[in-house]
Amino acid sequence: MIRLTLTEAGEFAESILRRHGFSEAYVRAIAATVVAGERDGCASHGLYRLLGCIATLKAGKVIADAEPELVDQAPGLVRVDAHGGFSQLAFQAGLPLLCEKARSQGIAALAINRCVHFSALWVEMEAIAEAGLAGLACNPTQAYVAPAGGSRPLFGTNPLAFGWPRSDALPFIFDFATSAVARGEIELHRRAGKAIPEGWGVDGEGRSCTDPATVLDEGAMLPFGGHKGSALSAMIELLAGVLIGDLTSAESLAFDAGSKALPYHGELIIALDPQRFLGADTERHLARAETLFSAIEAQGARLPSQRRYSARAISLAEGVQIPRALYEDLKGLLEAGRG
Amino acid sequence: MIRLTLTEAGEFAESILRRHGFSEAYVRAIAATVVAGERDGCASHGLYRLLGCIATLKAGKVIADAEPELVDQAPGLVRVDAHGGFSQLAFQAGLPLLCEKARSQGIAALAINRCVHFSALWVEMEAIAEAGLAGLACNPTQAYVAPAGGSRPLFGTNPLAFGWPRSDALPFIFDFATSAVARGEIELHRRAGKAIPEGWGVDGEGRSCTDPATVLDEGAMLPFGGHKGSALSAMIELLAGVLIGDLTSAESLAFDAGSKALPYHGELIIALDPQRFLGADTERHLARAETLFSAIEAQGARLPSQRRYSARAISLAEGVQIPRALYEDLKGLLEAGRG
Repeated sequence: MIRLTLTEAGEFAESILRRHGFSEAYVRAIAATVVAGERDGCASHGLYRLLGCIATLKAGKVIADAEPELVDQAPGLVRVDAHGGFSQLAFQAGLPLLCEKARSQGIAALAINRCVHFSALWVEMEAIAEAGLAGLACNPTQAYVAPAGGSRPLFGTNPLAFGWPRSDALPFIFDFATSAVARGEIELHRRAGKAIPEGWGVDGEGRSCTDPATVLDEGAMLPFGGHKGSALSAMIELLAGVLIGDLTSAESLAFDAGSKALPYHGELIIALDPQRFLGADTERHLARAETLFSAIEAQGARLPSQRRYSARAISLAEGVQIPRALYEDLKGLLEAGRG
Repeated sequence: MIRLTLTEAGEFAESILRRHGFSEAYVRAIAATVVAGERDGCASHGLYRLLGCIATLKAGKVIADAEPELVDQAPGLVRVDAHGGFSQLAFQAGLPLLCEKARSQGIAALAINRCVHFSALWVEMEAIAEAGLAGLACNPTQAYVAPAGGSRPLFGTNPLAFGWPRSDALPFIFDFATSAVARGEIELHRRAGKAIPEGWGVDGEGRSCTDPATVLDEGAMLPFGGHKGSALSAMIELLAGVLIGDLTSAESLAFDAGSKALPYHGELIIALDPQRFLGADTERHLARAETLFSAIEAQGARLPSQRRYSARAISLAEGVQIPRALYEDLKGLLEAGRG
């Protein structure tokens, strides 16, 4: 393993992105995202993702200097057209107006369109919670998941995230895929020649299947939680695909046309302002949320982001460690982009 | 079984509610709700619920003629104080302004406070979808469910519902409890002396438990879908409890103080207007939702409300059937209320 301070990791990420021609705003935004993932122990959203970012750029599937375009569409609705850039700048462009609208209207939505997306949604939920707001976010991905009772890929792994502000602690945040597991988890089982548990996927006839290759090549992944998770995944296709006028997961996969680039689609974010809902009683009610969190922890259950925050505390003190092979691959990218 | 036309079922329900002193507006609204449940094959939300309504009234836990109070709280936020009445009139009172705000703002929220609640949320999602809007609704209930990894009741069965308008079909609607199953399902196993499947509940030590009595009396029910369902249930406590300044499931159970009345708490409903999001392109994008629904059905999977809509079609043609014992109990209520 190679140990890097967070500053070193950030500079390393920035230098790779810069070498390959991303504009300075994207360099900083993408580096911040992957360092946040690495810092929080989410290796799959960490420095590793730079490989996908550069591959997507080389495949011509992301614009290295796209300028997000902000549209004040309605009193409760902000739209940002990412114009084919990564989602981070679009989110940054829309966030201030989203927060302003949530504070004046009580609730507001931000639709991000035409972005290339790989950021974990908790990064965005954290920004919204830090602004004192509650947030919800979701997006389609690419069609790998069958609806419950079905047999063929239709839904994406469609993440759903929620954030809640806390004045004396890091925010309450969850961010989960509506698939039973990440696609990468099934890939790992295939590589290791191991069977997957029941409930992760089906074969081409819709039968429960424990062979990872069959699930990935002929069948489909399954949603979490049976028909309930499946219903949530359909909702995400509708709200963060159709309603915002952007691609569904099936359309996103077709758009990709086998390039295996990072997915191109939209995202919906909703912000709600406790102050606007609760007025002078806000502090008293927010204290009741703390009572709820204490009651969860008192019985030995974890708050959703607890593991991530523990990893963060360690990384802030000790830096992060990445596998030497990944480090060499990333250094290779730095060389490849030179000159 | 006793067969009733929907008109007969409605008149029967109304006569019972009227006898016991509900104001005419509640008589009609509650009867419509329970007939809709019976009609759609949801017996647990059907005429059976009248027993709970009357018991709750007799226990002094609902106001028979409460006047809902509408507050235009913010440009995107409607609040209705139910003043201790059943939720139906509060929802009716808030719906027109919620729809108006969603159409002008793009997104709007309705907070219902201090209501007694037993209505399935799909009834409300249907009203919102019929207005051409997408809707989301959720509410806490009473604390019977442990967080994933815990051992003691903290969350309610916390339903989450979603509705999507369709121009040539009944709306796409789901409405599910975030508990693994309904509490009544575990009660039925206890009465039948049968073990419950793994995953429905835990004992007082948080261990997986298949004895229904232990789960109900010493342990707790479990959320659906492991830590993901648990996170959703916590979100509902926060959004439809804390954020709207109303009771959490733990507080609602404490408020009930063992009376076993229908639960008293609040509810949050969010409405989004496809027209405001999509403008002139609305029809084209809504057609893409139909493509998604067709793709779900083409692989033999069901849309979430399909079973309910099938039952509805039969009930509209043939009326509903209720067990004779229930019919006699309800007739008993009619007599008991006389004079």
